[in-house]
Amino acid sequence: MKVLRSPHNPIIEPKDVKPSRQDFEVIGVFNPAVARLADEVILLLRVAERPVTTNPNLSLVPIYDVSKGDIVNKEFSKDDPDNDFSDPRFVIKAGQMYLSSISHLRVARSKDGVTFNIHDRPALSGENQYETFGIEDARITALDATYYIDYVGVCPNGVTTCLASTTDFSSFKRHGVIFCPDNKDVTIFPSTINGKFYALHRPTSAVFGKHEIWLAESPDLICWGNHRRLMGPRADSWDTGKIGAGAVPFRIEAGWLEIYHGVNSENRYCLGAVLLDAKQPWRIVARSTTPIFEPQADYEFNGLFPNVVFTCGLLYEQQKLKIYYGAADTSVCYAELPLQHVLDTLNL
Amino acid sequence: MKVLRSPHNPIIEPKDVKPSRQDFEVIGVFNPAVARLADEVILLLRVAERPVTTNPNLSLVPIYDVSKGDIVNKEFSKDDPDNDFSDPRFVIKAGQMYLSSISHLRVARSKDGVTFNIHDRPALSGENQYETFGIEDARITALDATYYIDYVGVCPNGVTTCLASTTDFSSFKRHGVIFCPDNKDVTIFPSTINGKFYALHRPTSAVFGKHEIWLAESPDLICWGNHRRLMGPRADSWDTGKIGAGAVPFRIEAGWLEIYHGVNSENRYCLGAVLLDAKQPWRIVARSTTPIFEPQADYEFNGLFPNVVFTCGLLYEQQKLKIYYGAADTSVCYAELPLQHVLDTLNL
Repeated sequence: MKVLRSPHNPIIEPKDVKPSRQDFEVIGVFNPAVARLADEVILLLRVAERPVTTNPNLSLVPIYDVSKGDIVNKEFSKDDPDNDFSDPRFVIKAGQMYLSSISHLRVARSKDGVTFNIHDRPALSGENQYETFGIEDARITALDATYYIDYVGVCPNGVTTCLASTTDFSSFKRHGVIFCPDNKDVTIFPSTINGKFYALHRPTSAVFGKHEIWLAESPDLICWGNHRRLMGPRADSWDTGKIGAGAVPFRIEAGWLEIYHGVNSENRYCLGAVLLDAKQPWRIVARSTTPIFEPQADYEFNGLFPNVVFTCGLLYEQQKLKIYYGAADTSVCYAELPLQHVLDTLNL
Repeated sequence: MKVLRSPHNPIIEPKDVKPSRQDFEVIGVFNPAVARLADEVILLLRVAERPVTTNPNLSLVPIYDVSKGDIVNKEFSKDDPDNDFSDPRFVIKAGQMYLSSISHLRVARSKDGVTFNIHDRPALSGENQYETFGIEDARITALDATYYIDYVGVCPNGVTTCLASTTDFSSFKRHGVIFCPDNKDVTIFPSTINGKFYALHRPTSAVFGKHEIWLAESPDLICWGNHRRLMGPRADSWDTGKIGAGAVPFRIEAGWLEIYHGVNSENRYCLGAVLLDAKQPWRIVARSTTPIFEPQADYEFNGLFPNVVFTCGLLYEQQKLKIYYGAADTSVCYAELPLQHVLDTLNL
């Protein structure tokens, strides 16, 4: 069998995660970043929560209040025709969009890579003006002895990507906004190339309606430039809608292998691969003509956002891709893919 | 009189500019960058051109073809209901947007600051995949003996800001894309602050519908990060719509003075000022409660895009702001404002 889903899937579900507050419920745990730390596998889970409400006519929207240093629930009446609840992920009032849940990042640790001990408290959560609607979808890049974590910060002024670092996943240092609005799906390469850091990123062109993968370089991981468009969606393909980088790229003999996500015309999220030149990562060697992984299991079909497999991290070990992924924006799952299966989709 | 418009306005009109090709006509010359070079004033004009067509049923859209190394005219039939010509600046076909004109940058030189010798040939024009729809709206920042020119590159993948440099305005060196899609209205500070370069920029949040001014820092002018939101539109104000940085900021005793543009609810473009802290330019000291300059003359009311004054550059000399500005996206104009007039709007 080419693709081996864990029989324990989903390996982490919302019921496994303790809410960060007594008045909150966890509605999703998904899109984990992954790293090896000594003999453990570390996940940085995205935990999505919302306030519990017993009033069916009221929607409570959680927003981090910088001046109070805490999350405050904003009330929206379901009877008010000015409030738009048509997309369950959002509440829109008078042109201003709010998120109906707020996400933070939580550490989970495992010896076997499948059974995780999930911490009770958030590791990183929204704490400044760029993170008032929460933080989402981390990626971990190990550079020497430091783990660099980029994550999405959401606030009413835009969707940014921010940087933090840690050596132990207990204490974290923040380094500010590294990609300005709107930009997400940032993955930093795990080594320099000719003395420069590189990252894939996914800016949005509002004017031209594009969601494509670009490459940037940096001298210091904070400042990024020399932006180059790497690739866009393809007509009549599994990745004909938005695309974005997924896991942190890793070296194989033929170059850098990146597992990215693509959306088709029916909003189905699949994973595919792109192989980049080892020395000139702005050169595409090959790209998956078919997905390497697609929604097939019940837990991938059904959830907060159905028909989604989405990865922010994998471990490449023993010629296998050990992929941690979010299923339907609801749970964390695990699958193993032989490298050869991925290479087969590249038609090298 | 507080605001002194030149009696020679518009000082440069489309008829003064030689088209770059025999089959093109100049439809606008506006939004110039400005610099002093020895005893001359240099402008980098934005020159907008379109192909001349004698067939009233046909629209010709100019696009730079990278493989051909030249501009190729794409034909759109006005009889085809799939083609949308409702906004004169654009042609939209099957969801793909094209610009109805293509802009390049042209040098103009003057001894007196008002009478300009306009070069016959473009100084910089679209020449790579990020510039196939042209290049627009330059700003010039003098740093030591080099003039750094940032300008907007437009292509179907997005609106970026690119960097070039020159010492003589005859030969230019390109440095690539420094701000990824969509980002424009970039102005680089004319000196470092605590060893770092700073720039104002205007990213777009498609998700939240925001067009606000942010600040970034850089070690090398190419890579930019530590993005901080500086300011947004204000409710019920002259700048209640989009805002964006205008001229390159300059030092006065009280800090950095930036002249920016703001759009009101009726799409009227005015200029205002913001004073930033000298050492911590992310701190706003004061902001104009009223515009410092607004459309009042016929040539500002009428043109390709009416009711617009828009600056990309000024000279601050003898306590006066010598503002070069685009009027109605059609012509270049000049006005002088006493510094005190600007300070009066800040309510310091």
